Amino acid sequence: MSTHFSPLKNDTFLRALLRQETDYTPVWLMRQAGRYLPEYRASRQGAGSFMSLAKNPDFATEVTMQPIDRFNLDAAILFSDILTVPDAMGLGLYFEEGEGPKFERPLKDEQAILDLKVPEEGSLQYVFDAVTQIRRTLDGRVPLIGFAGSPWTLACYMVEGQGSREFHGIKSMMYKRPDLLERILSLNAQAVATYLNAQIDAGAQAVMIFDSWGGALADGAYQRFSLKYMQDILNQLQREKDGQRIPCIVFTKGGGLWLEDMAAIGADALGLDWTVNLGQARARVGDKVALQGNLDPAVLFAEPDQIRQQVTATLQSYGKPSAGQGHVFNLGHGISQFTPPESVQVLVETVHEVSRQQRLQA
Amino acid sequence: MSTHFSPLKNDTFLRALLRQETDYTPVWLMRQAGRYLPEYRASRQGAGSFMSLAKNPDFATEVTMQPIDRFNLDAAILFSDILTVPDAMGLGLYFEEGEGPKFERPLKDEQAILDLKVPEEGSLQYVFDAVTQIRRTLDGRVPLIGFAGSPWTLACYMVEGQGSREFHGIKSMMYKRPDLLERILSLNAQAVATYLNAQIDAGAQAVMIFDSWGGALADGAYQRFSLKYMQDILNQLQREKDGQRIPCIVFTKGGGLWLEDMAAIGADALGLDWTVNLGQARARVGDKVALQGNLDPAVLFAEPDQIRQQVTATLQSYGKPSAGQGHVFNLGHGISQFTPPESVQVLVETVHEVSRQQRLQA
Repeated sequence: MSTHFSPLKNDTFLRALLRQETDYTPVWLMRQAGRYLPEYRASRQGAGSFMSLAKNPDFATEVTMQPIDRFNLDAAILFSDILTVPDAMGLGLYFEEGEGPKFERPLKDEQAILDLKVPEEGSLQYVFDAVTQIRRTLDGRVPLIGFAGSPWTLACYMVEGQGSREFHGIKSMMYKRPDLLERILSLNAQAVATYLNAQIDAGAQAVMIFDSWGGALADGAYQRFSLKYMQDILNQLQREKDGQRIPCIVFTKGGGLWLEDMAAIGADALGLDWTVNLGQARARVGDKVALQGNLDPAVLFAEPDQIRQQVTATLQSYGKPSAGQGHVFNLGHGISQFTPPESVQVLVETVHEVSRQQRLQA
Repeated sequence: MSTHFSPLKNDTFLRALLRQETDYTPVWLMRQAGRYLPEYRASRQGAGSFMSLAKNPDFATEVTMQPIDRFNLDAAILFSDILTVPDAMGLGLYFEEGEGPKFERPLKDEQAILDLKVPEEGSLQYVFDAVTQIRRTLDGRVPLIGFAGSPWTLACYMVEGQGSREFHGIKSMMYKRPDLLERILSLNAQAVATYLNAQIDAGAQAVMIFDSWGGALADGAYQRFSLKYMQDILNQLQREKDGQRIPCIVFTKGGGLWLEDMAAIGADALGLDWTVNLGQARARVGDKVALQGNLDPAVLFAEPDQIRQQVTATLQSYGKPSAGQGHVFNLGHGISQFTPPESVQVLVETVHEVSRQQRLQA
């Protein structure tokens, strides 16, 4: 595929991920296109189920652009869900009002696992179409991030059928029949690698792997059942497209104890949740990877002055970026639906302003 | 109060907490008296609400003894709940079938916070009566652990009214009105210190502070809003009773990144969840504190061979105890209600057997 896109006007986000110098710290927010925006709620209103909309490239483009049009963000992220891949494997992803994602046909027994196949060609075309349409609509304003769930996180939902507190089903499988779990994980890794490569072909300029449930694993089990399969993906990923490096960000929520291991699998950057001290994380990973994060999303419920204070403290915790290191500002988790949009405005302005000043200091 | 209790026959648990030499690694399990035991379910059957039973010292004694009678455990823990203190403050603790704890009268507004008072004398007498009765019934077989929730964890439930995923209410308060939150936390710390001291007077031979939700806090916020108030408790705690040191264990679920800070507040031991590498944790805290933990409770869903393997790996991860250090074996979280009791038998035997062998190795 050879698609011509407009040249990029703001590459600050990509430069920070590649640990190159930037004039300021770039910022985007996980789940930045979402329910906290009145224009998003208006677009959703009476327009059908979440999945029917997520599968509609026009809708995905419209809502992806909403936070870009409203705030001075440094990256756009594809509007989609981390569970599109198992949905395309035939598990039947659906959402019920006010609840997390669920599967109609979770992996109930060994036979279901043996029958599992990577998605058929074309079954995820709606995602790639959305990527291309969004990239065209962005017209070079900021880079577009593609993404997928990690093999372990996908497997959690595929086995449990939904989110879980204790992960009774998948953890039983992990300790009793690790061979079965590894079969699912291998297949997921292969499917996710193909999926991300197709997003890159379609126009994604960076990709992110969301390991939302890696932090539920024990030390040792994390390395074996989550990290290894993310590394498998990285090994299969095209890292350059049209002469541009395509950075890859790996984010394990609750993975702060394993940063050294995560920094060694070949990612360009690591996402961090808010439990991690940014300065300490920076010292631990050195110039191996850039860091992305990590404000507590709950800060955005506070008043502007308090938001400014907390954002500044986060930037100071990372410190002044030096050559060969990079920081992308983000929340430590997706933005809450209860966030006042004005708070995001304050956050973005503060990140840009304070990080410019920071670079001018001796 | 001067109560005469039988001399202790098995002090392995206390010695390990105090970093003295032991012949083997002692073991107990969080929530060891609970629904996974058929005898517990039989005692509960038709016997009234959870709280009416928890307030009945005869019942508390009966179920506390059940795992001690069944397994070769090295400690008993008072059957109670972490939320007894706010219940005694008048918030009305209750449990609905299959759900977590809730409060009838959570702290809805500033006035409710200003009106909050430490529990009236006598309102927690049922707990102290249970402690004394259990200690008598134990007759020196193993030590009895008393416990309480941490000020932050209590505040989470007091403000949210129940468990929470995002802690929208209390985190909003934390960032908007830290003065109000600090008022609650100070009061909680004072009440918990009084409560634990009374448990020690009544016969508790060690105490543990459960900080179940400390891991929801951002770095920095944890130190200010959770750790500080646990330190306040430790500063007020009687650490010796009848010539015996009363060890105190502090457990922050999800607190693995903050072990150095936790080791500095004056606790004798730290509880660890399963995300922490025991060997690394040992290196980080040195001889400042003993460690307790940290098997993934889901291991107990596996077959005996796999349980033995995982228990052995956990002991090896800690390594052979050396002078001035100590390890107490436990799960990284409460035992699941779905655990087969036979699995616990395998765990306890393996811990004792393998840890004895470990000490004989060069």
